[in-house]
Amino acid sequence: MDPRVRPASMSVTGFDFAGWSQDQLARVEQALDVWVTADAPHGLDHGAPAALVDAMRYAVLDGGKRLRPLLVLASCEAVGGNPQAALRAACATELIHAYSLVHDDLPCMDNDVLRRGKPTVHVKFGEAQALLAGDALQALAFEILTPDEAGIPAVLQARLCRLLAQAAGSAGMAGGQAIDLASVGHTLTERQLREMHRLKTGALLQGSVLMGAACAEVAACREQAVAAHAALANYGAAIGLAFQVVDDILDVTADSATLGKTAGKDAVGDKPTYVSLLGLERSRAHAQELLLEALAALDASGLARTAALRALAHMVVDRHA
Amino acid sequence: MDPRVRPASMSVTGFDFAGWSQDQLARVEQALDVWVTADAPHGLDHGAPAALVDAMRYAVLDGGKRLRPLLVLASCEAVGGNPQAALRAACATELIHAYSLVHDDLPCMDNDVLRRGKPTVHVKFGEAQALLAGDALQALAFEILTPDEAGIPAVLQARLCRLLAQAAGSAGMAGGQAIDLASVGHTLTERQLREMHRLKTGALLQGSVLMGAACAEVAACREQAVAAHAALANYGAAIGLAFQVVDDILDVTADSATLGKTAGKDAVGDKPTYVSLLGLERSRAHAQELLLEALAALDASGLARTAALRALAHMVVDRHA
Repeated sequence: MDPRVRPASMSVTGFDFAGWSQDQLARVEQALDVWVTADAPHGLDHGAPAALVDAMRYAVLDGGKRLRPLLVLASCEAVGGNPQAALRAACATELIHAYSLVHDDLPCMDNDVLRRGKPTVHVKFGEAQALLAGDALQALAFEILTPDEAGIPAVLQARLCRLLAQAAGSAGMAGGQAIDLASVGHTLTERQLREMHRLKTGALLQGSVLMGAACAEVAACREQAVAAHAALANYGAAIGLAFQVVDDILDVTADSATLGKTAGKDAVGDKPTYVSLLGLERSRAHAQELLLEALAALDASGLARTAALRALAHMVVDRHA
Repeated sequence: MDPRVRPASMSVTGFDFAGWSQDQLARVEQALDVWVTADAPHGLDHGAPAALVDAMRYAVLDGGKRLRPLLVLASCEAVGGNPQAALRAACATELIHAYSLVHDDLPCMDNDVLRRGKPTVHVKFGEAQALLAGDALQALAFEILTPDEAGIPAVLQARLCRLLAQAAGSAGMAGGQAIDLASVGHTLTERQLREMHRLKTGALLQGSVLMGAACAEVAACREQAVAAHAALANYGAAIGLAFQVVDDILDVTADSATLGKTAGKDAVGDKPTYVSLLGLERSRAHAQELLLEALAALDASGLARTAALRALAHMVVDRHA
């Protein structure tokens, strides 16, 4: 084993990733359960229609690895940031991710019937309700980021909204999906494939890291803060791309039961992937290179508490589903 | 003519509504043209994919009455608010409105092929691109509200995001559309119909008024500001509902060419409307009542510069398309 690639469980720092992530996931699940409800988060005196909220909760709760929330929380921890703000940011990234899956599964997109081992939202609630649930989840993400009275500085609320909107929009996730649409049946160069994934999956993963970093209180030293921010951006870019490379590998090597979604879709859909471009072995090697790149960025960050980010990078690359 | 219902052109204040709205519309059109582009509004070094941006621009530019932006700008003027912030808020409300039309026209929703006299977005660009364009427009609305360097106080940026997210989400526009879905083929009481429209159309119209009002600089007198805010909320609620009552009337009385969208859809779709519930004459009387209610709210606001809001209320009720 390359000694630079040390699994989280062997960390010399003795960091207990399993315990850390269990604690963080409990916070995230509880918060999502509270915020995705018929009661508007700002105490408005009217609720949302129950059928819509059912579809939203189905899309969000009880499923998913919560990778984006964990990245937000780990990144916030690395910079010693505001934990309340980070929890909101963590849930907001998950709502955006969840809405994108709901819309992506629709018949006019990937037409998928299985997600996280359950029927997709439109299969269960109908296409129109799925469309609206996705739309409402996106709005809710921004509502969660801008609480009236939760003691989160307005300047941070605004910055988190900006980062999330950029990560989700036409120069981020939605833009990447549009490139994906246009690329079906075409041969892409590795550069074009990387650009597509940098937006489609990478933007929100990197955005999660940046949102966590944005939760930092005002830094004692501006130069240090800038260097740490740049390093975290590099970390986010590397794991964002690694995530997609591994996704492409798993689409070929794993079965639907393990993935909780339909395996082998890329080949059937004639979609360009890392595996179709580089082959399986070179794709695996590329994922390991990106892992090293992510870890090197953390080493260069000057930040002390990067154990959780380090473990998450391993999780992204070593996952089996 | 009821002397309380004085058309804008006969205003005793001599307010030139035509000139005012022409000026405001020019600002809004120019700003939308700048902000809905492949260049991310924050000077990122990468652009969004051209095909997606084409669909977004098609959905937003060169069409529409821009009622929501005008409400934002008129409301901001009434409270003497920050004009730069109001212009961003104005455009953000229009982006949300535009995205909702794109998604609403999709085959799984209203399946409409004509909008503003042109083929709908999915007819021109395909369903998948239309879905993504709508999603990206929603994200862009929040990005526009949170500029990095435009001199808009962060507390105002956060407040505008909150108001817009509430207006657009599950307890607002998206929630209203979900009620609409569930109500097809059912007989609603007037109360249920009002609740549906309060969310579906009213939330964003009222939200536009509230966003304009939020642009106020810190008020000299808190009590006055609270009273003005409550009055503007009432104004927004009244014209929000009036808009929908008139929409229902026009669906029966106008033709597709005048409307720029398919007329007679409600009856064909077996949708509950004010006309089906109250009949044409009582619906018209109800619209006039709501106009009086909106004007009375302005009278009670204690605000001096309400001429544009007054004229917009007339425009909502007296329109023919």
